[in-house]
Amino acid sequence: MFREHLMRMVDNVPGALSGVLMGYDGIAIDSYAVGEQLPGADIQTIGMEFSFVLSQIRKASEALDVGTPSEVTIQADNLTILTRAVTSEYFLALAVRPEGNAGKGRFLLRVVAPSMKAEL
Amino acid sequence: MFREHLMRMVDNVPGALSGVLMGYDGIAIDSYAVGEQLPGADIQTIGMEFSFVLSQIRKASEALDVGTPSEVTIQADNLTILTRAVTSEYFLALAVRPEGNAGKGRFLLRVVAPSMKAEL
Repeated sequence: MFREHLMRMVDNVPGALSGVLMGYDGIAIDSYAVGEQLPGADIQTIGMEFSFVLSQIRKASEALDVGTPSEVTIQADNLTILTRAVTSEYFLALAVRPEGNAGKGRFLLRVVAPSMKAEL
Repeated sequence: MFREHLMRMVDNVPGALSGVLMGYDGIAIDSYAVGEQLPGADIQTIGMEFSFVLSQIRKASEALDVGTPSEVTIQADNLTILTRAVTSEYFLALAVRPEGNAGKGRFLLRVVAPSMKAEL
């Protein structure tokens, strides 16, 4: 069931490479990748690297009292990583090529996150 | 001169509260704030909290070999924080209210960053 949501997300965003539903501890529930991936940057590894960062962002937001950070977007030269909090324990991440449609990615993360939350 | 760029950025984005040019070590070169600020979240403190996070994101991007993370956007309940790398040592951050125009903020960060880089 999680896989279907991930496929819906990845397959409908031009330039999307992969998606993952992961705990903030870096352990994935499920992931989905399509087409040629970046070498050394599969979605499990991306998620693990950034789960720590996302935890730090939550701590910083708490310290600043600016509320929960629901969305974090990281735009690097070769990859855009979109993330969205699903619950206090899990987040969704979507990896999109630089020339891909990150705007549609963000939109689909917003659409898919509540459906996933309902199943967690 | 940095102040003028910061003013241009903050004053032209609806809902923008403040901007800062800061080192990844958390030390600000200059900052500018306008209107009522969020309690406990002045731009110097925001910058300091997130300079550490941005450094971690650079390390993660390096580990994944996805290139330099030029833009990082953090959308929390009460504040959106837009950041853009200026050089390998400095970044720009702009704080925008949730109902503000983050898209225009991101656009102006892209416009202002090269001008600031030329003066660093």
